[in-house]
Amino acid sequence: MDLVTLDDIRAAADRIAGGAVRTPLLPCTWAEDDRPLWLKPETLQPIGAFKIRGALNAIARLDDDARRRGVVAYSSGNHAQAVAYAAATEGITAHIVMPASTPQVKIDNTRAYGAEVVLVGEGQRERVAYEIVAERGAVLVPPFDHPDIIAGQGTIGLEIAEDLPDVDVVLVPVSGGGLASGIATAITALLPDAKVIGVEPELAADTRESLRAGSLVDWSIEDRNRTIADGLRSQPSELTFAHLKTRLHDLVTVTEDEIRSAMAVLARRGRLVAEPSGAVPTAAYLYHAAELPAGRTVAVVSGGNVDPALLSDVLTRSLDEE
Amino acid sequence: MDLVTLDDIRAAADRIAGGAVRTPLLPCTWAEDDRPLWLKPETLQPIGAFKIRGALNAIARLDDDARRRGVVAYSSGNHAQAVAYAAATEGITAHIVMPASTPQVKIDNTRAYGAEVVLVGEGQRERVAYEIVAERGAVLVPPFDHPDIIAGQGTIGLEIAEDLPDVDVVLVPVSGGGLASGIATAITALLPDAKVIGVEPELAADTRESLRAGSLVDWSIEDRNRTIADGLRSQPSELTFAHLKTRLHDLVTVTEDEIRSAMAVLARRGRLVAEPSGAVPTAAYLYHAAELPAGRTVAVVSGGNVDPALLSDVLTRSLDEE
Repeated sequence: MDLVTLDDIRAAADRIAGGAVRTPLLPCTWAEDDRPLWLKPETLQPIGAFKIRGALNAIARLDDDARRRGVVAYSSGNHAQAVAYAAATEGITAHIVMPASTPQVKIDNTRAYGAEVVLVGEGQRERVAYEIVAERGAVLVPPFDHPDIIAGQGTIGLEIAEDLPDVDVVLVPVSGGGLASGIATAITALLPDAKVIGVEPELAADTRESLRAGSLVDWSIEDRNRTIADGLRSQPSELTFAHLKTRLHDLVTVTEDEIRSAMAVLARRGRLVAEPSGAVPTAAYLYHAAELPAGRTVAVVSGGNVDPALLSDVLTRSLDEE
Repeated sequence: MDLVTLDDIRAAADRIAGGAVRTPLLPCTWAEDDRPLWLKPETLQPIGAFKIRGALNAIARLDDDARRRGVVAYSSGNHAQAVAYAAATEGITAHIVMPASTPQVKIDNTRAYGAEVVLVGEGQRERVAYEIVAERGAVLVPPFDHPDIIAGQGTIGLEIAEDLPDVDVVLVPVSGGGLASGIATAITALLPDAKVIGVEPELAADTRESLRAGSLVDWSIEDRNRTIADGLRSQPSELTFAHLKTRLHDLVTVTEDEIRSAMAVLARRGRLVAEPSGAVPTAAYLYHAAELPAGRTVAVVSGGNVDPALLSDVLTRSLDEE
């Protein structure tokens, strides 16, 4: 299987330069002395999450013929908004297939980016998306299982290596594995001594089990749906797993309480609104130091699309604890 | 009176490059079509506010003799933490004089940056600070009334002009006027067609009254303390007013409800934690379009040091409104 290369990621960086924000590394004054911490705030992207990078890269690679036919994605989360936004910036039609049960605000946001939203029953998303592909010749943009998506997300690793060339540890959330595959590819190529460490919720730790087994292990969607980190309920594909197996240094897991607490710390001390999935790497830094290598650490804050009621609740509870 | 120049600001930019974050401009997908909006998130600075820029510039200019004697500041707000942090990065002793009534968390934060905190009774701050100056020969770092502070804050204008050279309108909060003076100096020098517009709370609109009168008008501290925007309760000095009078295009005011609502919008749609003062320019964009010039707009989000209980409350109320 051909893995994504540093050159693929460099090419992606050129393609997405106008559409994605070049996010800074934020030094944390509240870090422990022997483990300085920087945050990589992908919450600042136009759609509030890193997904914009992969979507922009995949769409930028389409030829004129494909552009006329448009793109399709099935997602109820950040990938839907990323594809809708990226297609709009390129003047391309996007069809986004979402479950009818998707919260109205996410449907409205996706429409606001100019996409055609197609609402379907539970479990129908994939089938309907492929029907649109067949009928219209539209191109499917997958959420993680594609080299262009992996290369786009990998631009985050490129930026970390540029801004902090003596980084020791990079903490990255793992779900379908596109983000972790891309970042690990860039970092291991540019900074061979740095370690990229995946982080999963304990309640959706299929990738840890797969890495230990040496091949993909399937967790039921019912089990994975237990975590509050709704962006981390997917499982790697063969393609992303091939990257993770060879380029990830380790994988640690965090509890639900740790995720909530990290959200509060990011809001109060980092002044960042993070969704649960985005707070997972910071939770590992805060509560799993013993399992992590020492040294200069970057935590990727992958997204900030959180229900305001949840954020409010997390802030209130963290007050009670003081 | 000598005003700060573009060259002063350029020199400041070189001095603070290692200590302050080069914040990006964030395009807002939720802006109105004919008034594209970008946020300049100074909430991302190490101490959570733009004040770090002026403090770093002022301290970088001290000679070796002054460095040995240390610095002094009196403040209960972001300036205290900025001077403490900037002094620590330069290895200089900082004495911060704070009222004994300052919330413990702010005292703790200032101490955590390595500063000597001196607690005093109400109204004693200035006197005690000058005693430290007299006894130890320490250098007072004022919050806004100094060319080095104005030049440091002006580096924000430099960055806006670099990143968005066709900007039409820049919205900036006004309190003591250091931030607005610096930004207006940089923008008017580099982009003569762009307009820098100050924004004040209605309840602390002393600067609007002063600009209309053509000279400084005094509002009682009791009146100014009514606004929730605790960072905007100061008044300009002769030095900052001389900048504002000649370089600010206009000044608009916002209500307390508009400030709270803008905080919720920044958290929900901009994924930024803003303190009330930091949300004031965005409130002007959202609720005072008729008083603003059309075109490409930047709102400076000046700081994010907000009481979590207030942020939680603002998020909850904005849900009720839906």
